[in-house]
Amino acid sequence: MVFQEVLQLSAVGSGLHEITAGVADVVSRSEIARGTCLVFVQHTSASLLIQENADPSARADLETFFERLAPLGAAWYTHTTEGPDDMPAHLRAALTNTSELIPVVEGRLGLGTWQGIYLFEHRDRAPRRRVVVTISGDGR
Amino acid sequence: MVFQEVLQLSAVGSGLHEITAGVADVVSRSEIARGTCLVFVQHTSASLLIQENADPSARADLETFFERLAPLGAAWYTHTTEGPDDMPAHLRAALTNTSELIPVVEGRLGLGTWQGIYLFEHRDRAPRRRVVVTISGDGR
Amino acid sequence: MVFQEVLQLSAVGSGLHEITAGVADVVSRSEIARGTCLVFVQHTSASLLIQENADPSARADLETFFERLAPLGAAWYTHTTEGPDDMPAHLRAALTNTSELIPVVEGRLGLGTWQGIYLFEHRDRAPRRRVVVTISGDGR
Repeated sequence: MVFQEVLQLSAVGSGLHEITAGVADVVSRSEIARGTCLVFVQHTSASLLIQENADPSARADLETFFERLAPLGAAWYTHTTEGPDDMPAHLRAALTNTSELIPVVEGRLGLGTWQGIYLFEHRDRAPRRRVVVTISGDGR
Repeated sequence: MVFQEVLQLSAVGSGLHEITAGVADVVSRSEIARGTCLVFVQHTSASLLIQENADPSARADLETFFERLAPLGAAWYTHTTEGPDDMPAHLRAALTNTSELIPVVEGRLGLGTWQGIYLFEHRDRAPRRRVVVTISGDGR
Repeated sequence: MVFQEVLQLSAVGSGLHEITAGVADVVSRSEIARGTCLVFVQHTSASLLIQENADPSARADLETFFERLAPLGAAWYTHTTEGPDDMPAHLRAALTNTSELIPVVEGRLGLGTWQGIYLFEHRDRAPRRRVVVTISGDGR
């Protein structure tokens, strides 16, 4: 049994944006009791991450870490025609994930207590983002 | 057809700990012949990695690499209230994986000859860790 | 419903090599309309990445980035018996992915407009590579 929906995320600034509630709603509508939930972002300058949803300082440090690791405007970049934030966006996306897969347990997302699902937006001025959610498994 | 079990991993020190045998046992109990095996860690300061299971020096260098890339107590960390190993734990988890997905081929994990599944513990004194294993596919 | 095939990729040099067309062919043969497509590489010195398939300069910078982050012959490597490109290969594989999971939407890979699936070869002289493709979902 497969249930599929597209989440259209409105434009946001760069950084981590929690989407757990929206994904959980799709799981609920799917009426699937046990299986898996695939979250897939259809872009190469935004990505996904499962991270701590408790302390905002952890997310701030996470953003800083990737800004330092794949900085804006490194001297050696050759891919510069799409703006200074495009190449670092691809690098940060490559280091994180295009998809996250979460078990569905008793009809709900099987996340740990402190885990949240985040869209990691890497562009300063991003357009809308499309996220395809696919739930597979056995029905209730 | 979906089969699901939780592996409770007893507390271990930081580093790579192979869990291939435990996951393979779940695949065997599932009686699923062809499909996928999702391994999901319900924590944000431990992660998963599929890596070479032959030479221990490769794993030692892997641990060193992540210690250098996301070091203990970097001066710019602001998330420090949970101890010096907490923020690097989140960073190392973000760079590796919350889940690994392995094909099930002829009733067994479809790993390559040199591949093993590892829990990558990032805390020095971690509690027990929960790993949810979900096998989906066609039965024997 | 599960459909599985092994893609044998002939030896290539290091770098990003697009495999989208080969994976799309398996999806087409599977006759699965809605579900997921797991692409899994059975090696620890090659990996997978979903990246921009438009501008080759983005891929060149991506390769450079990983060469700088996990360089050949770093002084601190202890795993050196398999050649100077082996340890960086494991590190680059750990930072990227052993598997990619793509939704299947209306019988096709649900990739975004600019996304392509790449084998990221990390060895200079790699042998053939095996990639297991597993499509799960509801039939047409």
